[in-house]
Amino acid sequence: MPPINLPANLKFGPFRVSKQVFHLSKTQLSYGLVNLKPLLPGHVLICPVRSVPRLSQLSANETADLFNTVRVVSRTIERVYRATALNVAVQDGVDAGQSVPHVHVHVIPRQAGDLDDRGGGDQIYEMMDGEEGDLGKAFWEMQRARQARGEERRDFAGGPDSDRKPRTEQEMSDEAEWLRGEMEKDADEGDEKGLGN
Amino acid sequence: MPPINLPANLKFGPFRVSKQVFHLSKTQLSYGLVNLKPLLPGHVLICPVRSVPRLSQLSANETADLFNTVRVVSRTIERVYRATALNVAVQDGVDAGQSVPHVHVHVIPRQAGDLDDRGGGDQIYEMMDGEEGDLGKAFWEMQRARQARGEERRDFAGGPDSDRKPRTEQEMSDEAEWLRGEMEKDADEGDEKGLGN
Repeated sequence: MPPINLPANLKFGPFRVSKQVFHLSKTQLSYGLVNLKPLLPGHVLICPVRSVPRLSQLSANETADLFNTVRVVSRTIERVYRATALNVAVQDGVDAGQSVPHVHVHVIPRQAGDLDDRGGGDQIYEMMDGEEGDLGKAFWEMQRARQARGEERRDFAGGPDSDRKPRTEQEMSDEAEWLRGEMEKDADEGDEKGLGN
Repeated sequence: MPPINLPANLKFGPFRVSKQVFHLSKTQLSYGLVNLKPLLPGHVLICPVRSVPRLSQLSANETADLFNTVRVVSRTIERVYRATALNVAVQDGVDAGQSVPHVHVHVIPRQAGDLDDRGGGDQIYEMMDGEEGDLGKAFWEMQRARQARGEERRDFAGGPDSDRKPRTEQEMSDEAEWLRGEMEKDADEGDEKGLGN
């Protein structure tokens, strides 16, 4: 599968992203990335390409594209992760738990009883707002680890030495590649419905 | 202020709604209603007019309109409830905590430390998924109370006897009316930006 032709210097907040990006909307206004620390399998983030912290700062077009991307992606995510439902959530601002100042929509596939051993279904939100779900922390840790390896000038795209990257980046890249293929399988249906995402 | 000209037989899941509706998008594809049991002041619900349970069942237009309505409403809600952030969440399906089978986006205004006395900020989600946030239960209880008063044929619009309605319906109606006025104050700005919601 050819790589996605991503906008130059695509970022998630202050962090450059590329290999973990599994989807770019046709308008190039929105993209989807797999998670550094998914709370449940298939937990992905959908973001506007333009980096602004708050929903209210998006244009009407950006908002429409963002949530149509959520809708289209969520269908594939639900299918491939054999989910029966999804939590869709935006922490819109610091006081709502936002840790990276770039609008991002959490899409988390759910199944009956999936969190029974962790205290019940509503625990997903505590996980999202707690240590486990601190995206900012996870990204900074990855950046620090990369710097410690003398890779401070590289982004997630890696380089010739990408085989030296920690398994977690490889895993993300593999998952993104796989999801991208699965998105394509669903694309025909989407096109028929004129979704354009 | 003239009443909103609502679509005939507007429903939230199985429940007819009218007086607690504070906003109808210009396209008439989406509406906003105040909550029977707000988890925090200003907690509102934004819904598509067409009643379907899942996000994936909405059209591209409906999705665009729904979330642009969220964006436009959230600006007013944040202003009038003096919030600094918002939680925006969809329980998309029963296994994600959905209790009324009609897509609804929770918009919950947040302030720093607002839930400190209830166990911290992430408690908002537990409240949403728990007893406190069970919309279906709250609506059924209201319907049962209405039936007990022999009002089973009436909807929230009430009738000549609407002054006999319990205070909570009056409160909802008052809040909806007030919010509608506040939405109009922000409408000019929205129109300038071509939002159309």
